[in-house]
Amino acid sequence: MSAATRALACALAVLALGLLPQRELAARDFLVGDKLAFDAALARLAPGDAIVMKNGTWRDVEIGFFAEGRAGQPVTLRAETPGKVILSGRSNLRLAGSHLVVSGLVFRDGHTPTGEVISFKRDERRLAHHSRVTEVVIDNYNNPDRDAADYWVALYGKHNRFDHSYLAGKRNLGVTMAVRLNSEGSQQNHHRIDHNYFGPRPVLGSNGGETLRVGTSTYSLTDSHTLIENNYFDRCDGEVEIISIKSGKNIIRNNVFFESRGTLTLRHGNGNLVESNVFFGNGVENTGGIRVINRDQTVRNNYLEGLTGTRFGSGFAIMNGRVDAPLNRYGQVRNARIHNNSFIDVDHFQFGAGKDAERNAPPVDSRMEDNLIYHRKGAASIVSYDDMGGIRFAGNLVQGTSAAELPAGFERTELRMRRNAAGLLMPQDAAQRRRGASASLRPVVKAATGPSWYPKNEPRVVFGSGRRIDVDAGREDALAQALAGAGDGDNLLLAPGRYRVDRLLLIDKVVTIGARQAGTVVLLPERTTLFEIRNGGALKLAGLGIDGSASPDSAGNVLIRTQKSGMFVSYRLVLENVDVRNLDVNHSHHFFDAGSRSLAEEIRITGSTFGKITGDLLRLDKESDDLGNYNADVLVLDGNRFTHIDGVLASLYRGGTDESTFGPRLAFTRNVVEHVGQGRRNKRRAALYLHGVQLARIAGNEFADSGGIVVEHTVGDPDTELRGNTFRNVPPLKASELHAQGASTVKYLENQDS
Amino acid sequence: MSAATRALACALAVLALGLLPQRELAARDFLVGDKLAFDAALARLAPGDAIVMKNGTWRDVEIGFFAEGRAGQPVTLRAETPGKVILSGRSNLRLAGSHLVVSGLVFRDGHTPTGEVISFKRDERRLAHHSRVTEVVIDNYNNPDRDAADYWVALYGKHNRFDHSYLAGKRNLGVTMAVRLNSEGSQQNHHRIDHNYFGPRPVLGSNGGETLRVGTSTYSLTDSHTLIENNYFDRCDGEVEIISIKSGKNIIRNNVFFESRGTLTLRHGNGNLVESNVFFGNGVENTGGIRVINRDQTVRNNYLEGLTGTRFGSGFAIMNGRVDAPLNRYGQVRNARIHNNSFIDVDHFQFGAGKDAERNAPPVDSRMEDNLIYHRKGAASIVSYDDMGGIRFAGNLVQGTSAAELPAGFERTELRMRRNAAGLLMPQDAAQRRRGASASLRPVVKAATGPSWYPKNEPRVVFGSGRRIDVDAGREDALAQALAGAGDGDNLLLAPGRYRVDRLLLIDKVVTIGARQAGTVVLLPERTTLFEIRNGGALKLAGLGIDGSASPDSAGNVLIRTQKSGMFVSYRLVLENVDVRNLDVNHSHHFFDAGSRSLAEEIRITGSTFGKITGDLLRLDKESDDLGNYNADVLVLDGNRFTHIDGVLASLYRGGTDESTFGPRLAFTRNVVEHVGQGRRNKRRAALYLHGVQLARIAGNEFADSGGIVVEHTVGDPDTELRGNTFRNVPPLKASELHAQGASTVKYLENQDS
Repeated sequence: MSAATRALACALAVLALGLLPQRELAARDFLVGDKLAFDAALARLAPGDAIVMKNGTWRDVEIGFFAEGRAGQPVTLRAETPGKVILSGRSNLRLAGSHLVVSGLVFRDGHTPTGEVISFKRDERRLAHHSRVTEVVIDNYNNPDRDAADYWVALYGKHNRFDHSYLAGKRNLGVTMAVRLNSEGSQQNHHRIDHNYFGPRPVLGSNGGETLRVGTSTYSLTDSHTLIENNYFDRCDGEVEIISIKSGKNIIRNNVFFESRGTLTLRHGNGNLVESNVFFGNGVENTGGIRVINRDQTVRNNYLEGLTGTRFGSGFAIMNGRVDAPLNRYGQVRNARIHNNSFIDVDHFQFGAGKDAERNAPPVDSRMEDNLIYHRKGAASIVSYDDMGGIRFAGNLVQGTSAAELPAGFERTELRMRRNAAGLLMPQDAAQRRRGASASLRPVVKAATGPSWYPKNEPRVVFGSGRRIDVDAGREDALAQALAGAGDGDNLLLAPGRYRVDRLLLIDKVVTIGARQAGTVVLLPERTTLFEIRNGGALKLAGLGIDGSASPDSAGNVLIRTQKSGMFVSYRLVLENVDVRNLDVNHSHHFFDAGSRSLAEEIRITGSTFGKITGDLLRLDKESDDLGNYNADVLVLDGNRFTHIDGVLASLYRGGTDESTFGPRLAFTRNVVEHVGQGRRNKRRAALYLHGVQLARIAGNEFADSGGIVVEHTVGDPDTELRGNTFRNVPPLKASELHAQGASTVKYLENQDS
Repeated sequence: MSAATRALACALAVLALGLLPQRELAARDFLVGDKLAFDAALARLAPGDAIVMKNGTWRDVEIGFFAEGRAGQPVTLRAETPGKVILSGRSNLRLAGSHLVVSGLVFRDGHTPTGEVISFKRDERRLAHHSRVTEVVIDNYNNPDRDAADYWVALYGKHNRFDHSYLAGKRNLGVTMAVRLNSEGSQQNHHRIDHNYFGPRPVLGSNGGETLRVGTSTYSLTDSHTLIENNYFDRCDGEVEIISIKSGKNIIRNNVFFESRGTLTLRHGNGNLVESNVFFGNGVENTGGIRVINRDQTVRNNYLEGLTGTRFGSGFAIMNGRVDAPLNRYGQVRNARIHNNSFIDVDHFQFGAGKDAERNAPPVDSRMEDNLIYHRKGAASIVSYDDMGGIRFAGNLVQGTSAAELPAGFERTELRMRRNAAGLLMPQDAAQRRRGASASLRPVVKAATGPSWYPKNEPRVVFGSGRRIDVDAGREDALAQALAGAGDGDNLLLAPGRYRVDRLLLIDKVVTIGARQAGTVVLLPERTTLFEIRNGGALKLAGLGIDGSASPDSAGNVLIRTQKSGMFVSYRLVLENVDVRNLDVNHSHHFFDAGSRSLAEEIRITGSTFGKITGDLLRLDKESDDLGNYNADVLVLDGNRFTHIDGVLASLYRGGTDESTFGPRLAFTRNVVEHVGQGRRNKRRAALYLHGVQLARIAGNEFADSGGIVVEHTVGDPDTELRGNTFRNVPPLKASELHAQGASTVKYLENQDS
């Protein structure tokens, strides 16, 4: 460098120093590497400036992004490289001020220490306005305490936008995203929520698992003016409501709902518009569509296909309400406009749904016109629970209903449909095209939602989809070693022999343990517990024997359990052709015990035998507080043989009185049950105990010399059927309704008693 | 070095190389730094050799020390420096072979993955013989799953010694040290267990908390010949049995039992000798002495002082039994020799203890002679439950009994006692000195037990023993920050003001949170839970207000809880002059919820007020499996005011039928109770629910317009008294006996009902 150049550089540096504080002139980027630097930069920000977070993992960092930008000169917080700034541990983000932009952050491997991950406020008084959060990711960022309610995104203030973001895998209590209207500064907010990918949210197993909620009952007569458009809801199964609208004048348009078990629900608030949305149920159970409550709601130009849900979860439902309903109950439907929607292969239409002593007012002043109902299996059920004279039906075309009679305004028609380039079935006949959704409807594509740089992975690993790992009985702890080395989907195949297991085996991956040759392998657990399923774990056993006779001589052993608490990832347990015996070294030796707040996505036991057990088989009853947190969504026991079991085969409990879950569901079929359920410590002397189970099929079983079946129905229209069973020397069924008036609704058909 | 010297050195080296494999000639030390090196060295060991583990922390290492030494030439495993080799994580040690010596290891910060930490066997067939483990430490090495039973030391084989070791802080299920007789190779074992420090073992809160067990009922007719001498048992409170002898011909001599809540119990097996032991109870509750069952037991020259225990936990008890008792029940006492023991300030002597329909045979062919009973408060209670004609009583001197009549063989005498240099009270009168323990008795001193290099720390930190930390309301999360920076015993003093708390506060240390000025501080929790007490935590609140009205609007909030599971360290919770209100944003808002298997050493609430709570106050009922794992050992509620609480004030549950615990115990005194316990979700509509509580005092309270009191007695001689309470518009007491025949034994005295 020459002296001249050096002088010039020096002069420029001086100049730069002089210029930078002149905030009008040059926007600055502050690259920061830690919280201290962040806060230091924050103090110096001017409109147009940006804080750039260095790439890397930021652990246990609570970001407060409080600044004032200007229209056209926002203050920005962004990742050095989008997707390369990971916020983990106990981290979160608050933003407050106006004209702020946040982008490129990923929240992962942790959870917020407060009630919100991304919060558009600093505190109750200081909110964010005219601000945008775009291209952020919140991925499986769960509080391990499932009861600790939090929101992943909470919108406060006005004129904010949340877009192109990825929110998937929420497993703890609390709405994924909430628009809050709890102060004047957040009402009539005109927020925009668009192009987001709402990825799979598994069944929560209680109330509080909505994906998006706008308002709450308290503020539901307030208008929100939130626009929700072009979002993709992929398997949002948290609870019966996918979107819960609880405020007025919102627009929900052009969103896609893919195989999501629940409905878009106009729960509270008036004057909402539901338009041009597309629902693809693909025949998945409990997939629903749109549910209408309250006044001035418009539902038009939506396309719904392959929805199986019924009742409140129907493909389409208009509810009964009350003329002067309190804020938190059901307002009467008035002035609804339901038109030009296409319902393809939608199983259930309900009018006046939920009619009861309280919900006694059917819809009035409403219209349902020019819709199209087409069911290729002829199975569209259209049911009215009350007088629907308050709805003017006209021009609705129907093909494929199971209904014998249709109300006026529904015309049975031959429809010739063809799938168009957008993947939607449309009538070919020009005249018919005036009905149903418009041929110009284009569902938003998944790839156009979320940040482009973040992959949309499948959340579930299939059993046996990985490697085969051979295990020999020879060496000490062979099974434990093999398990430690296994990966998701792997299949451990055990050579013939007896395997003493001197330690607890942790199942924190999806794994199958099978015999190379069925019937030649026996596991001999030596500890209190053989398998503990942990978060991320799923276990399949096939063709194995398990003999409990080497268990410790103490009461309360448990062969398989989930982790005792903090189990926020739901799991699967499958047994095929397994022989379990001699869980009887001491009393109360149980086969399976669910941890508190654990939820089995599925427990499936088939072709297996269980003999000589002093405890219970399946303890799925850890809810002691009746908040509706049950332990198994689907339980299938088919073709098994159960003999000499002191405890209960399944104690399946779903307490509480809310109606926001589809489970638990039970199939108990073709089993042989002998000398079961009569132990002294089995307080009910029951072979099966079901409380609050929503769907139960008990069929084709042989029960002998055993305790009885106890069924307690609670709320939620439970459906229990016992069919074709034989009972020999078994006490009669005890069925009761704990909430509904009148006799039990349990169906008892074609059973033989002797 | 000259060429000559070099040549010589070289020759010597060659010679050395040549000699070393000549195993007779030179013992070798193999210094190893990891498991691989360890195993490599193991393969090369000869008698006289040693493996030396390098100083440092060895994490997740399972050591198998399998070798053959010779008499006088043992194979040794030792720490490079005693106490500097730490085994942590999931580590353990097995030894098998003969003439082995292990020393200097410390197990800490972890737990064994298998059923034993130090095991004198490789597997069922390969045991250790003539081996010694000396100067090892196992310190708080607990499985966080309290139900996962393990032993810290399990002796198998024969002629083994375990000495000068330190075992303290076991908190999970399972005997601290077990001598196993479960195969012929382990019977008539002639083990020696000496000079060990058995440090504090807190109340387990269930069966399975013995400190030392020799044999099990199955092998109890087998002789063990184990010598247990010169050990120090310091506050071994695990359960009612400190040492449980379940085999024959053992000698227990010259041990000290310091403030240990339980007894040395000759539970099974015959021909044992209990000699020259010293018990110092210091008046601590439930401190016991010696309990005699079965044949040919000798109890002589023991010194017992300051023992308060009663019933099975008495200072001295001889039980009734059965002539042909099954192995696991109570054998009749026959040919017992009880002589020359000193019982100083021992409150309870029981003869024929446990008499019932099954235990119908009193002792026979026995003698109790030349003992000395001296009680300075005159409170020695001597009770016979059956005909004690089968015991020849002679020469027993008594001063200070509360008994009106004494059996023949007890003489009331004026005793003049003086404490000798060994700290024992001895008669001054020469003739009297023939009675009671010998003047030459010298209790082993604590410092002579355990390894000299490991400190014997006190396990308990007193509230307020640390620093004062001032906290101001001004800044966000002031309380959370102060708490994070606090240490054990610290005292956080809050300046006047309202503190919004937006996160869960973890209590993992002993901490006091108080108001600088009572009544000027209000905490406003904003999350589901305000405080979670974790392992190692204890919480005292003083002079604070807590207002729940900013809590989330969801059912099931909990103000204070323990961690939900994995709580293996018992804790304390103290409230003094605290005002709690408005836990009523939604239903089922509880004040305190105990985690599964958590145990409160003490919960003490005094001078406090609780108003407007939709849930329960104290949920101490997490035992769903009736194994006797209760949630609070001592519960004190005194001088409080409870109003408008929907749930129950305390639901205190101890299930199961074993009789191995002293708790739970309750004092509920001088409280005002109004409009409590009548919520719809309070299934029993009870203000207090006690199940299996061992000791309950409900006195001087005013109950009005509230739910009733429900008391369910189970086993274990429960003692419940309601005295001097007033009840206005309260349902009558519901008391029941769930196991005993006949009317309830609840005492109902001087209460007023209107």
